[in-house]
Amino acid sequence: MPEKSKLKQGNATASSFDLIKEELASVEQSLSGQVRQFDPGVEPYVSYICDTAGKRIRPALSILVGGATGKVSDDHLKLGTILELIHMATLVHDDIIDGANTRRKVPTANCKWGDGMAVLLGDALFSHALMLSTEFDDLVLSRSIASASREVCQGEILQTQRRFDLTLTKKDYFNIIGMKTGALFAAATELSAYISGVSPEIRAAMKDFGMKLGTAYQIYDDCLDLVGTEEQFGKTLRTDLEKGKLTLPMLYLLEEAGDTQREILQKRIIQQEELDLTVLAGIAEYQGAIGRSLQYATDLLQEARESLSLVNVSAYRDALAEMLDFLLKLLGSLQKA
Amino acid sequence: MPEKSKLKQGNATASSFDLIKEELASVEQSLSGQVRQFDPGVEPYVSYICDTAGKRIRPALSILVGGATGKVSDDHLKLGTILELIHMATLVHDDIIDGANTRRKVPTANCKWGDGMAVLLGDALFSHALMLSTEFDDLVLSRSIASASREVCQGEILQTQRRFDLTLTKKDYFNIIGMKTGALFAAATELSAYISGVSPEIRAAMKDFGMKLGTAYQIYDDCLDLVGTEEQFGKTLRTDLEKGKLTLPMLYLLEEAGDTQREILQKRIIQQEELDLTVLAGIAEYQGAIGRSLQYATDLLQEARESLSLVNVSAYRDALAEMLDFLLKLLGSLQKA
Repeated sequence: MPEKSKLKQGNATASSFDLIKEELASVEQSLSGQVRQFDPGVEPYVSYICDTAGKRIRPALSILVGGATGKVSDDHLKLGTILELIHMATLVHDDIIDGANTRRKVPTANCKWGDGMAVLLGDALFSHALMLSTEFDDLVLSRSIASASREVCQGEILQTQRRFDLTLTKKDYFNIIGMKTGALFAAATELSAYISGVSPEIRAAMKDFGMKLGTAYQIYDDCLDLVGTEEQFGKTLRTDLEKGKLTLPMLYLLEEAGDTQREILQKRIIQQEELDLTVLAGIAEYQGAIGRSLQYATDLLQEARESLSLVNVSAYRDALAEMLDFLLKLLGSLQKA
Repeated sequence: MPEKSKLKQGNATASSFDLIKEELASVEQSLSGQVRQFDPGVEPYVSYICDTAGKRIRPALSILVGGATGKVSDDHLKLGTILELIHMATLVHDDIIDGANTRRKVPTANCKWGDGMAVLLGDALFSHALMLSTEFDDLVLSRSIASASREVCQGEILQTQRRFDLTLTKKDYFNIIGMKTGALFAAATELSAYISGVSPEIRAAMKDFGMKLGTAYQIYDDCLDLVGTEEQFGKTLRTDLEKGKLTLPMLYLLEEAGDTQREILQKRIIQQEELDLTVLAGIAEYQGAIGRSLQYATDLLQEARESLSLVNVSAYRDALAEMLDFLLKLLGSLQKA
């Protein structure tokens, strides 16, 4: 059974995932089936990753959009399985890059077996996912999936390249998070609609929905890194600045802070000095920068809702809307933090 | 223009590559074209890798087999381009795993930009290659290419997993090198024949040819690591044992050495003590173990030649035979080393 979605954190009651419990169980079974297709010597490693990683948001999106735009089919489930495998591969590689030792309370692949093995495991998951995508009779699907994967990698490369780079603009930031997070969300929603055989308009609307939900989610995650509490969210926070990642709140802050404050901030970022919350909170414009970021994400969710309104009313559409509501709630909780 | 093939090292005069100079130049152009399809921020990194990595053996095989089994077409060139991109991706990741600082006399990606960036760059190359493979109208091609990539990763995982493992058998070793090196060679030759539209027999023969050439090449490389001289071959040698990689000569040696010598060897391998040439050369059975390994590779090349004889006589077939001859010569040079 899939792990509880992060979107359900904090006692929220999103029924989004309940509606498709059975389909998600099928994806879970399918993932286990994929694991068994690896060489017996490789299988245990892959199995560990499949069992520990994943909130299954991408499969949930594939299934819900499938239902909202037609009838949920095996191809929708397969799409969800493939995207989840790709997502897992990126997590395995992200943990190497971040030097992360635990993910969801268990040791990461790099921590358990070393960086080298983790590089190879991510590669194996990735190639398996793309191999699976060629099982679709329609080349558009495998092509779009490979393209979305490439976007994710490119987004991460750009992000790595622009660390500690004070010339990074908000436009650059949105471009990067659209690639690194939006692309796979959008692949889930757009390709699911495509599988259902909808009109180009609905397909575009679903792509837009996924891209905006993914982007808003990333902004939430970036704000969380600054203002969340570790007890509340159970993950290591305050790591972005340390790594030179300039996220939306920092970009607003650099834009809005007075000259003196900005100079101090820039200097500390470039010199890679520790920038703790006390320093940031001491800057008058800090709350405003967080607020503007949360507002930006809120506006994106509103736009996503408008795209969603283009598909017919159904329990699936309601469940997708609930995902928006839930993320809104999470954004609200940070506003108060 | 492609770098001079390693198969041409040591003043050998294989004309294999001369015959297809123009086609290889096309692949080179196509690779440059692929580079430009990356995000402008990512392009310079990819360009660096494309310019510095590669003897272009896989494209050469794709083209030569294309010519030997039909008429060289754009699809043969595309296959070569895709396999070269995948090969590059694996080299970028291998260099991270091996902590290598230089490859072909220039700094590796991990040395230049850090492990994290190198992980992402390999991923981007890999996903781009698989995206390109979906441009074939025939799904068999993209499926087989993804499958071969997965084999390469799995072979490397098994190799990493079995380091310092004295229960490794020769069968295990052949399985591993077949996956990690044979699979992409075999993909080049088999799929090239498939593109030419040959009979299943010829397709199987070409697959066999590629697999055996690739396997023999890996055995040569593994022997080189033990008995080659760095001056002669311009690469860091004697690293396999240090990393616990038990290659064919060592497996033969462990099999053939007397009880006392074997115990000493096993102990040193497990305790990861330095095992220099003096120690190995002091064991009576050492030369024999090298000789048997070289003979095994020689026999494989003879079998590959038999598979090759199933296609009609042509300049392309001759060029493929010359690749076998050239590898034979290299094996001979180690015999005398």
